[in-house]
Amino acid sequence: MKIGGTPQRTIWRASNSGAVDIIDQTRLPHAFTTATLRTVADAACAIKTMQVRGAPLIGVTAAYGIALAMRADSSDANLEAAVALLAVQRPTAVNLRWALDQMRARLLPMPLTRRTEAAYDIAAEMADADVETCRRIGEHGVKLIEAAAARKKGAPVHVLTHCNAGWLACVDWGTATAPIYMAHDRGVRVHVWVDETRPRNQGAALTAYEFGQHGVPHTIIADNAGGHLMQRGKVDLCIVGTDRVTANGDVINKIGTYLKALAAHDNGVPFYVALPHSTIDWATAAGDAVEIEERSADEVLKMTGRLQDGRVATVDIAAPGSPAANPAFDVTPARLVTGLVTERGVAAASREGLLQLYPQRA
Amino acid sequence: MKIGGTPQRTIWRASNSGAVDIIDQTRLPHAFTTATLRTVADAACAIKTMQVRGAPLIGVTAAYGIALAMRADSSDANLEAAVALLAVQRPTAVNLRWALDQMRARLLPMPLTRRTEAAYDIAAEMADADVETCRRIGEHGVKLIEAAAARKKGAPVHVLTHCNAGWLACVDWGTATAPIYMAHDRGVRVHVWVDETRPRNQGAALTAYEFGQHGVPHTIIADNAGGHLMQRGKVDLCIVGTDRVTANGDVINKIGTYLKALAAHDNGVPFYVALPHSTIDWATAAGDAVEIEERSADEVLKMTGRLQDGRVATVDIAAPGSPAANPAFDVTPARLVTGLVTERGVAAASREGLLQLYPQRA
Repeated sequence: MKIGGTPQRTIWRASNSGAVDIIDQTRLPHAFTTATLRTVADAACAIKTMQVRGAPLIGVTAAYGIALAMRADSSDANLEAAVALLAVQRPTAVNLRWALDQMRARLLPMPLTRRTEAAYDIAAEMADADVETCRRIGEHGVKLIEAAAARKKGAPVHVLTHCNAGWLACVDWGTATAPIYMAHDRGVRVHVWVDETRPRNQGAALTAYEFGQHGVPHTIIADNAGGHLMQRGKVDLCIVGTDRVTANGDVINKIGTYLKALAAHDNGVPFYVALPHSTIDWATAAGDAVEIEERSADEVLKMTGRLQDGRVATVDIAAPGSPAANPAFDVTPARLVTGLVTERGVAAASREGLLQLYPQRA
Repeated sequence: MKIGGTPQRTIWRASNSGAVDIIDQTRLPHAFTTATLRTVADAACAIKTMQVRGAPLIGVTAAYGIALAMRADSSDANLEAAVALLAVQRPTAVNLRWALDQMRARLLPMPLTRRTEAAYDIAAEMADADVETCRRIGEHGVKLIEAAAARKKGAPVHVLTHCNAGWLACVDWGTATAPIYMAHDRGVRVHVWVDETRPRNQGAALTAYEFGQHGVPHTIIADNAGGHLMQRGKVDLCIVGTDRVTANGDVINKIGTYLKALAAHDNGVPFYVALPHSTIDWATAAGDAVEIEERSADEVLKMTGRLQDGRVATVDIAAPGSPAANPAFDVTPARLVTGLVTERGVAAASREGLLQLYPQRA
């Protein structure tokens, strides 16, 4: 997608060297800067400090991390060490482990002299595959927005989204945002209500930044506001991403998603979830069995932003001494989900719906 | 309620003079300071700048403002001027107009020499009446918490609340908080989940401050978290305040209340609304007719807090240039409300329920 009018990905190979460049997402939305990864240690650090975040992007960054390791020393011992180093940086991200397993399995059989370029090629393949998956999600999802536009006879289609399932979490396009970008680029009038997504504010910080840079009309709202907007007929459909979909179609996503799904259901607003097939957890029957990560209370008690003089500062916002709890995800029951938008099409949020798109899982 | 172990009200007559002291709520939770009102202009300024806020407290402050005006000049002309000045400071607060009408009607027939002390007496009466109304709401509401405690056989009762319907919005006790303080003071084990209540953060800033000072166990949560906590059985009941209840029992309250009511309904958690009779809007049939105040986008885009060195600063938290919308209230349909807790008892959220408590309105 575009930043300042120029197409941009979240990660790319620097033109004249083996180095890899990334957007430093820890600085967004307050500053747009890139960082250069020259060693596997740089890649590990970028993942750990969340210079890169979002499961698909973490996987691709790890793959490039292996390429950087091979460039320095393509021995079996160094390959194993690099895999071990990268795997522990974000142990819960499924895509990280998946990408490292792929790299290891494909590089180990190769002669040492071929490993470096092969590693770069496989990492580039993974990045391109992620872009293509998101683009296909967009192709299927854009039909939902176009249908709403047809019903509204040219009035803008108002989409509500939560958190950041955007291109910054992937390599390009994003998952929930791909249909929105595609609609906008095709000239469909679309406007997005962006939940700020407390406590980490991924909506106000990242999703709004993406849309602002690409030129998609959008408005930031407090997470509290979405129900009211739906009651007053100001939302045509919701699209969110997901961290995991269980075999019955339950959706684990950023905390607060469930509340918006309830409001959508109460007001007859369609509620869609966009995801690649790799997000489906066939081994878990339903969402109520999923353990929810509890994160630091500081994310609730503090807020980072720009002072008037441009410096970035963190302030304590709550009553001194009050404790906070910070569950990071919630479970939206399948009964509240209108459809799952995947790279193969739109499925009902049920075992049967998923198996129609992925029959090899039956 | 208590601050630092000492019982405290939000407004009181200074002991050795005609001046009136208030807690300066614009400094909370970052600093506890009081301010002294010596003139009607001081009172007007305190209301306008939200040093005092909450409909009941605004009314009492206006009454004391009239007393301050009478002390300076008890003429009819000055009484009318003081009423006119105070009335425009927060034109939408019903209690402000009500309190001023009372003061004017009772003082005008009196001889000039009696007006000053009478004005102080009536203002003190209003303050005491507000305390008594809230105490009675507490007496009725505490039974709900005690019943939950009995069912839980000594395990803590977990109450979820939204925004600040606490003693800082009244003179003492609060509305939604009165049952909680009463339960706590009686030795019932109660713990409160405090919604931070973006964008103005009244929960994290004021409600958490109140509970922390009085010693009520509580935990701040992002507004997004309440649905998840209910799904996992961690909320026994919800109690919120309200700005207006329409004749059919619909509840207009701080934005986001509707989302919590939906989650409570979906999980079988009782959802109560605490209010004095003056909050019932008998003239409006239902909530969908109520116009919702749209407030400044800056409340969404900025956040105020304490820097590490203790100074208070405001930071921009969102993507630069992104717009925000800020509806301040939403409507919780009566069908989602378990009961209305008033100073006369608990009513069903319906015209019939309200008329059982207030038959003179039939």
